[in-house]
Amino acid sequence: MFEKDLRLSYLMDFYGDVLDEHTQRVMKAYYDDDLSLSEIAEDVGISRQGVRHVIKKAQEQLEFLESRLGLAKERSLLDERIAKLREIHASLLECKDGIAADASRALGEVIDEFKNKN
Amino acid sequence: MFEKDLRLSYLMDFYGDVLDEHTQRVMKAYYDDDLSLSEIAEDVGISRQGVRHVIKKAQEQLEFLESRLGLAKERSLLDERIAKLREIHASLLECKDGIAADASRALGEVIDEFKNKN
Repeated sequence: MFEKDLRLSYLMDFYGDVLDEHTQRVMKAYYDDDLSLSEIAEDVGISRQGVRHVIKKAQEQLEFLESRLGLAKERSLLDERIAKLREIHASLLECKDGIAADASRALGEVIDEFKNKN
Repeated sequence: MFEKDLRLSYLMDFYGDVLDEHTQRVMKAYYDDDLSLSEIAEDVGISRQGVRHVIKKAQEQLEFLESRLGLAKERSLLDERIAKLREIHASLLECKDGIAADASRALGEVIDEFKNKN
């Protein structure tokens, strides 16, 4: 059996650009366009077994990169922190003090910067 | 000429773990311990030319990873944002309001979380 692991699709968001073009094409067809191995084989012009091999190798590369660089894990930590900043921002909006109003505005800007990066 | 590019030493902080052990050892000797090519050659048991080749290949890998993943650039953006959060935190400390004091404490905690990651 060859099961589609959606975690790999998630890791593609972080590390996909590191894979070679051929592999990216196969992975996109498999995970984003949800094509079958046979369909991809026909599109790309390799055997079904070849497609399976490309996907398997890409999975190993993605898992290796995540184990060494941890970008997916870091992103989820960052998202938690941004959520906390949003709560702080919301609480400051309740505050009538002038300094707090300035701080609230500045904090909103930083949150926006994080959002643009995401 | 073979010039020591300190930017590579910086990229090692981000991507060093992705390189194989042998390459990591050579890069550490060259950048962190500041050994000469000849000294590294003797330590590792390969030719001086071999050491040069390992370093050159590692440089290409590091530049490739940064061009695709941009972690060094992202870190510098993150540092700028944390600096802004610190300013906001400092301004809130001036504020006598109770809500602002709670916000200030919460913001300090988020900044600490970022710091622990760095």
